[in-house]
Amino acid sequence: MLSLHLFLLLLLSSCLCTYSGTSDKAVDTLLRLLPQEEGLRSRDLGDDPNEAYCESWRLSVETNNAGNWKKISARCSSLVEAYVRGPQYALDSKVVARFAQAYAKNIQIAGDGMDAWIFDVDETLISNIHHYFVHGAYRWKVKNGTAREQWAVSTKSPALPWSLWLYKKLQGMGFQLILLTGRKETHRNSTEQNLLAVGYHSWEKLILRGNLDSGKRAMAYKSEKRAELVAQGYRIHGSSGDQWSDLMGEPMAKRSFKVPNPMYHIP
Amino acid sequence: MLSLHLFLLLLLSSCLCTYSGTSDKAVDTLLRLLPQEEGLRSRDLGDDPNEAYCESWRLSVETNNAGNWKKISARCSSLVEAYVRGPQYALDSKVVARFAQAYAKNIQIAGDGMDAWIFDVDETLISNIHHYFVHGAYRWKVKNGTAREQWAVSTKSPALPWSLWLYKKLQGMGFQLILLTGRKETHRNSTEQNLLAVGYHSWEKLILRGNLDSGKRAMAYKSEKRAELVAQGYRIHGSSGDQWSDLMGEPMAKRSFKVPNPMYHIP
Repeated sequence: MLSLHLFLLLLLSSCLCTYSGTSDKAVDTLLRLLPQEEGLRSRDLGDDPNEAYCESWRLSVETNNAGNWKKISARCSSLVEAYVRGPQYALDSKVVARFAQAYAKNIQIAGDGMDAWIFDVDETLISNIHHYFVHGAYRWKVKNGTAREQWAVSTKSPALPWSLWLYKKLQGMGFQLILLTGRKETHRNSTEQNLLAVGYHSWEKLILRGNLDSGKRAMAYKSEKRAELVAQGYRIHGSSGDQWSDLMGEPMAKRSFKVPNPMYHIP
Repeated sequence: MLSLHLFLLLLLSSCLCTYSGTSDKAVDTLLRLLPQEEGLRSRDLGDDPNEAYCESWRLSVETNNAGNWKKISARCSSLVEAYVRGPQYALDSKVVARFAQAYAKNIQIAGDGMDAWIFDVDETLISNIHHYFVHGAYRWKVKNGTAREQWAVSTKSPALPWSLWLYKKLQGMGFQLILLTGRKETHRNSTEQNLLAVGYHSWEKLILRGNLDSGKRAMAYKSEKRAELVAQGYRIHGSSGDQWSDLMGEPMAKRSFKVPNPMYHIP
C-alpha cells in the first residue's frame, strides 16, 4: 500500500515537474492520457473490449487505414452484422447523403449538360447484404468472384434508401448522373433491370467493365473512366462510393463521399 | 385499425410483388431498410438521437465527407469532448498505429537512408486538447490563428501515446522520420523543445512553414514539401496525420494513416 502511494506520488510529481506551469486542466488531461501508455506493452489487441475494438476496426476500414483487408476481423463479424442490420448504418448513410446534398446545392449548374456526379452501384446505390449474409460473413472474400457474379445477375437487390434520396435530389438540381461499376458489361441487362425496379431512372450513362478492362484493379479502371469523362468535357463535381477504390486515383471528383461498407474491401 | 392493417398488407404485397422470387432473408432485409425512407420526409436531422447522430457526424469528419467544416456540430460538442477524453479515442488511435506498424513491417528497408515516413505534429504526435477545451469547443475556429500561435509557443503539449509508440517502432525498423507541420519557422525552438520533452528524438527533418509558405493552404504547402522530398530521393512509404490536408494532394505517400481528430478541421 505504501509503495503504491509512493508510486502515485512519484508519477504525479514527475508530471508536475515536466509540465510545470501547465493549468490544472492540462495536468488532468495528461493523467487521463498517461495510463493508456501501459497498453503499449501488450503485444496484441486482445485485451480491449470487443465492442470498442470493433468500433475502432470499422473506423479504420472507413478511413482506409486498414488498407487491403481480406475479411472482417473474426472478433467483429457479429458486430458488423448487427451494424448493417441496425439503425446506425442507416443513419451513417443518411448523414453522408446530407453532406453530399449540402455541397451539391451550392454548385452552379451551367445548363450545358456537363455537370456530373458519379455513383458506384453495389453497396452504394443498391444493397447486397441479403446475398452477403447468406454466403456468410466469414467465408466470403473479395477474391471470390462467384458471389459477385451471382449478385450481378440476381436483379433483386433493394435500393439503399439514402442513396436513392440523394440520387433524386441531384437529378432535381440538374446533375448528370453517371453510374460507374466494376460489374461486367455482360451484366448490363440485369443491372439495369435491378436499378429500374428499385427506383433509379434516367441516368446519363451506366459504365460497366468491358473486355479491355478485365483484370484491371478497380482503382485503375475507375480512374481511367473518369479521365475519359473529363476528356468528354464532364465536370465531375462529386463521386459517391462505398470503396476507396471508387473514389481515389487521378482524376478525382472535386468532392468524394465515402458511403459506409464494413462488409468487404475491393482494392 | 382496419386501415392500418390494410396499409401493412398493401406494403407487404407490393414488396413481395416487386421482389418476387427473392429469399425470405432478402425480404426481411428489405423490410428493415424500408422504414428508414420515412425519414426522407424530415427536413433536418433533429429527429435522430443525439448520440447516434454524433457517431455519424464524427464518421463523416473522419472520412472527409464533412468537407470544410468550421466547428463541431452544436449537438455534438459535449459528446466530442467525452470521446477525446475517454477510452474510444485512445483505442481508435491504437488501432491506426497498429495498422501502420503492420504495413511498415513488410517494407524492405534499402539501407540508403531514403526510406521515409512523414508525421504531422499537432493532434498527431502531440495533443493540444488541454488548450482546446480551455478555449472552448464552441468558440474556437480554424481561422482563429491566435489559439494555434499559443499552442506553438507553449512547449507543454503531451505526446499522443500511440503515435509515440509508432514513431519508436518505425525508428527501430530503420525509417527516416520526417515531421511536416503547418507551424511557422519562428516556432522551431518551442516545437523542438516540446517534442523532445515528451519523448520524440532523432527525427530526420522538422519542416515548418517558411516565409514563402505563408498564406498557402495546408494541402498545397504539404504537397509541395512532399514533392521536394521525392525530388531529394526519399521514398515516402507512409504518412500519418489527423487532417486530410496532411495526407491528400500529389505526390501522396504510398499509404496514408488518418489519425482521429473530431475537434477541428484544417482545409
